[in-house]
Amino acid sequence: MTRRDFIEKTGSASYLAMLGLGFIPEAKAKPFDLQKNKADKSIVILGAGLAGLCSAYELTQLGYKVTVLEARSRPGGRVWTVRGGTTETEIGGTLQTAQFDKGLYFNAGAARIPHNHELSLHYCRLFNIPLEIFMNMNEGGYYYSEGGTGTLANKRVKIREIHADLRGYTAELLTKAIDQKALDAEMTKEDLEKLAAYLKEEGDLDAMKKYKGSERHGYTRQGGYGEQTPVIAAPHALHDIIAAGLFHPAFSNVSEYTFNQQPVMLQPVGGMDALPYAFAKKLEGVVQYQTVVQEIRKTQPGVKIICKDKTGTIKEIKADFCICTIPLPVLKNIPSDLSADIRRAADFVPYMNTGKIGLQFKRRFWEEDDKIFGGISRTNMDITQIFYPSYNFMGAKGVLKGYYNFHDRALKMGNLSLAEREKAALEQGGKIHPQYATEFESSFSLAWQKIPYSQGGWAEYTDVQRKRFYPALTKPDDEIYLAGEHTSYLTAWMAGALESARAVVEQVHRRVNAS
Amino acid sequence: MTRRDFIEKTGSASYLAMLGLGFIPEAKAKPFDLQKNKADKSIVILGAGLAGLCSAYELTQLGYKVTVLEARSRPGGRVWTVRGGTTETEIGGTLQTAQFDKGLYFNAGAARIPHNHELSLHYCRLFNIPLEIFMNMNEGGYYYSEGGTGTLANKRVKIREIHADLRGYTAELLTKAIDQKALDAEMTKEDLEKLAAYLKEEGDLDAMKKYKGSERHGYTRQGGYGEQTPVIAAPHALHDIIAAGLFHPAFSNVSEYTFNQQPVMLQPVGGMDALPYAFAKKLEGVVQYQTVVQEIRKTQPGVKIICKDKTGTIKEIKADFCICTIPLPVLKNIPSDLSADIRRAADFVPYMNTGKIGLQFKRRFWEEDDKIFGGISRTNMDITQIFYPSYNFMGAKGVLKGYYNFHDRALKMGNLSLAEREKAALEQGGKIHPQYATEFESSFSLAWQKIPYSQGGWAEYTDVQRKRFYPALTKPDDEIYLAGEHTSYLTAWMAGALESARAVVEQVHRRVNAS
Repeated sequence: MTRRDFIEKTGSASYLAMLGLGFIPEAKAKPFDLQKNKADKSIVILGAGLAGLCSAYELTQLGYKVTVLEARSRPGGRVWTVRGGTTETEIGGTLQTAQFDKGLYFNAGAARIPHNHELSLHYCRLFNIPLEIFMNMNEGGYYYSEGGTGTLANKRVKIREIHADLRGYTAELLTKAIDQKALDAEMTKEDLEKLAAYLKEEGDLDAMKKYKGSERHGYTRQGGYGEQTPVIAAPHALHDIIAAGLFHPAFSNVSEYTFNQQPVMLQPVGGMDALPYAFAKKLEGVVQYQTVVQEIRKTQPGVKIICKDKTGTIKEIKADFCICTIPLPVLKNIPSDLSADIRRAADFVPYMNTGKIGLQFKRRFWEEDDKIFGGISRTNMDITQIFYPSYNFMGAKGVLKGYYNFHDRALKMGNLSLAEREKAALEQGGKIHPQYATEFESSFSLAWQKIPYSQGGWAEYTDVQRKRFYPALTKPDDEIYLAGEHTSYLTAWMAGALESARAVVEQVHRRVNAS
Repeated sequence: MTRRDFIEKTGSASYLAMLGLGFIPEAKAKPFDLQKNKADKSIVILGAGLAGLCSAYELTQLGYKVTVLEARSRPGGRVWTVRGGTTETEIGGTLQTAQFDKGLYFNAGAARIPHNHELSLHYCRLFNIPLEIFMNMNEGGYYYSEGGTGTLANKRVKIREIHADLRGYTAELLTKAIDQKALDAEMTKEDLEKLAAYLKEEGDLDAMKKYKGSERHGYTRQGGYGEQTPVIAAPHALHDIIAAGLFHPAFSNVSEYTFNQQPVMLQPVGGMDALPYAFAKKLEGVVQYQTVVQEIRKTQPGVKIICKDKTGTIKEIKADFCICTIPLPVLKNIPSDLSADIRRAADFVPYMNTGKIGLQFKRRFWEEDDKIFGGISRTNMDITQIFYPSYNFMGAKGVLKGYYNFHDRALKMGNLSLAEREKAALEQGGKIHPQYATEFESSFSLAWQKIPYSQGGWAEYTDVQRKRFYPALTKPDDEIYLAGEHTSYLTAWMAGALESARAVVEQVHRRVNAS
C-alpha cells in the first residue's frame, strides 16, 4: 500500500493535509498499521509551548484523549509576545509590567520564521495567520565598534558603507592576485578572465581595476533636480575598517548568510504568539493552565503526573502515555522516574543565556531621522544588536529591541536589576542613536535563563554533548516521550519544536496501533 | 533673517513641514522675499503624474490658482497599479482589460520606494499611506541561465547556492593569494592576517582554508527530530558556475547593491497608486481629466494651452505660468512655442523601452512549493526577471510579474501581440516554474514605449546627452517650467519627479515674490 493509498482510504484530514503538502519528510511517511488504526489511549502532555501544543493538536485530531499541563497562564512558552499589560517576574526578580501603547509589541522569544521552515509555515497557513516580512538585514542599519583605532572606531557607520567598501577592496585584491598570476595553478586562463570580469562588477572597480569608491557606499549629496548632481562619498580606507575592529565577528554577515536566516524571513502580523494562541483555541478545555508539574512517575505501564493546579491543590493525572516538552533546565529539578540517561542529559546539556529589552520611544526616530525600516544594527558593546520593528512603519510611536545578546553578555545583563538593564541599554544604544536621550518612554526586559519554566534560551549542544547526551532524549523512556527544540537538530527554532512534536505523535500512534 | 526665523514668522504650514523635516536640501532653502510674499498668480500644470500632482498640491497650499490638465482618466502617469477591471489600449494595440481577482494587483510602473528617498517617504507620511516591505532580493529565488554548458546550464538553481558558493570560492582564492604572499606589497602583514581571518568567516572556509561547501548553500536533508541529522548539499564547482553563464550581468547582484535598491525597500499597502490618488484627493476640481494638450503657446507674458476636453471640445487655458511635466517622447509631438533647446532635447533624449506582464495563478505555488516570498528570479531569457508579490502571502491566488525587461528585449516583447506576450512569458517562465502550465489564469501586459501619454519608461541619459540636452530642461523658458523625473538626476524614480516638483514650485514662488 502506498502512502497515498493509505491517506485516501483513511481520509485522515490532518495527515492528509500534512502529507499532501509534503510536510512529513519521506522518512516519517510510512503509513500506520491500518488493521489496528485506533486512538483509544490517554496522553498527558507536559508543557503548552509549541511542541506541546502541536502534539496535543495532532493527537486530538487523531482521536486521542489528551490533557496538557501548563505552568504558565498563557500558551506558547518561549514563543511570547510582550505588549502593554504583559507581566513577568523573573527568578529572584521583581514584578514587571509592560507599559507599551496599544498596538506596540516585541517578540521576546521566537521572532522570525525562515522561508524554508515548512512546518512553521504549514501551521500558519492551517490557522490562517497572516504573515508579513521580517527584515533580518538592512543596509541602512549601523555598525558601532567600541575600542579599536582610526577614523571608524567609536562611531556609528552605515552598514552599506562597510559592505560596499569591503566588496570593492576584496574584489580589487583578488583581481590583483589574478593579474600577478598567483592563481594560474587554480583555474584555466579563460575562467580567470571571466572571474576578473565578474569581480569588476561585483566590487564596482574602475577601469584600472581599482576600488576608488562607489555610489553603493552612499552620497555626500544625493542627486536631485536640475544642477543638483549626485556627489559620491569617498570610501573608507581598508586599514581603517580593520583598525576599527570591524572584522570582529560582531559585525560579520555570517548570521544573515546562514540557511535559516537568509532573506526572506517572515513574521505573523501582530506578534509571534498568534501561532500558539491559534493552537490553544483548538485546544480549549484540553490545556490546564497554571498547573505546575511536581513529579513525573511511571506506573508500569503508563504514567502518573503529580501537579499543583491554580488553586494550589495537588492532583494526580494518570495516562497511558506522556509527552514531556519541559525544557531540560526545568526538567532536571522535577523528581521523576525518568531514565538515568535522560536525567544526566538534563543535568549537562547547556542552554543559551540570552536576553532582550523592548524600548518604547515617543517617535520612530530611526525611521524619521535615520531611514531605518526594520533590520539590525550591530555592535561589540554588551547590547550586541538593536532590532528595529518590521511593522507599523511610520507610526507615531515604536518599540524596538534595545538589545538581543547571548552567552556571557546576556548573563551579565541578566544579572542587573531591571532599572540597570534599562540604563545600560539606553547608554550603549544612545551611542548609536543619540535620540534615545529625549525620546525614550518605557522598557520591558527579560533574561531567558531567569524566566520561570524556561530557564534558558535554547539547548546549545557542542558536538561532544550532542553525541553523549542527545540520543537518550530522542528515544521513548517506557511510556514517556520527550519533545521540544532540544530533541531536534533545529534547536532554537520553532520548527525544531514542531518537527519533534510531529515525530513523537507518529511514534505514539504507530505504537498504539502495533499493540 | 535665518531660514527658521522666516518660517516662524510666516507660519507657512507646507514649507514649515518641508523644512522642519529637512526635506528641502540646504541649497534650496533660502527664504522667499517676505516683503512680497504673494501667491496671486495662475498656474497651469500639464500632466497629473507625480511631478504634476506634487507641484499642484504645494502650489495650492501656498494659495495659487492652479489648473492641472491630464490626458488620462486617472492620476499617476507612470505610477500605475493594474487591478481587475483596469483597461488600456496601447498605441497601435487593442483594448485590454485586466481579469485579476479582487485584492490582486501589480504595479505596472513605479513599484518600490528606496528607504533613503526622503521625499517619497515624506508624502506617504503626510497622507497617512501605510507602507510595507518590498522584498527586492530573495536567496530563495532562482537563476536560470539558458545556453552555456555544464551541470548548471539550462536549469533553475536557487540563488542561495550560487551566492554561498561564489563567496566561498572567492574567499578561498583570495586567501590563497595572501598565503602565497602575492599581496604583501598591498597591506601590512598584520592587516593581511586579519583579512584572512575575516575571509574564513565570510566564505565559510574549512580549517585548511578551503571552501568545501556550506550549510548556507542548502541541504539535501534539513535537520529534524531525533536522528534526522542535517545533510549539507555539495557545492557546485566554480567552473560549472562560470560555464553555465552565471557570471553574465543578468545574474549579477549589482542592482541590489546600488544605493537606490539596497534593502530595505518599501511599498504602499494595496498598490503604489495610493500615492497619486492621495494627491488627487486633495486636488478635486483642480485636475481636469481626459483633457489632452494640443498646443503650448507663450503669450508674452504668460501662457496659453490649447487642449481638447473629454467632450471633444477644444479649449484655451490661459495662465501666468505653466509647469509642463509631459514626458519628452510625448512633448516632442505637441506644437509649442518652447525654446529650440528644449525641443531639441525632447527629440534626442532617449527613453527606456521597458515592459511588464502580470500573471494571475490559481494558487501561489511559488510560496507553497518553492518557498519564495517576494523577491526576484533572474534569467538571461527575454523575460529577464520574475517578481514575486510582496503582499498577501499565503493567500489563495496570486499575481506575479512574469517579466520586467529593458532595452531590446522589452522592444521585442512589446512588439508582440498581447497573446504572444502571454505565450512567451508562460513558456520562458515555465522553464523556471513548471507549475505555470497548470496554474495560469490570466494576464495583463504593457510596453511602456507604447503606452499613450508616456511612450517610454524613463529618460535614459548617457553622459554626453546629459551634458548636451539636460541643462535646457531645467531652466525656465519664459513662463514655462519643466518638471518630471527627466529633469532630475533621479531618473526612473518617483523621488526624481517629486524633487523636480518641489524645486520648480520654489522657483516659481520666488519669482512671483521677486516681481
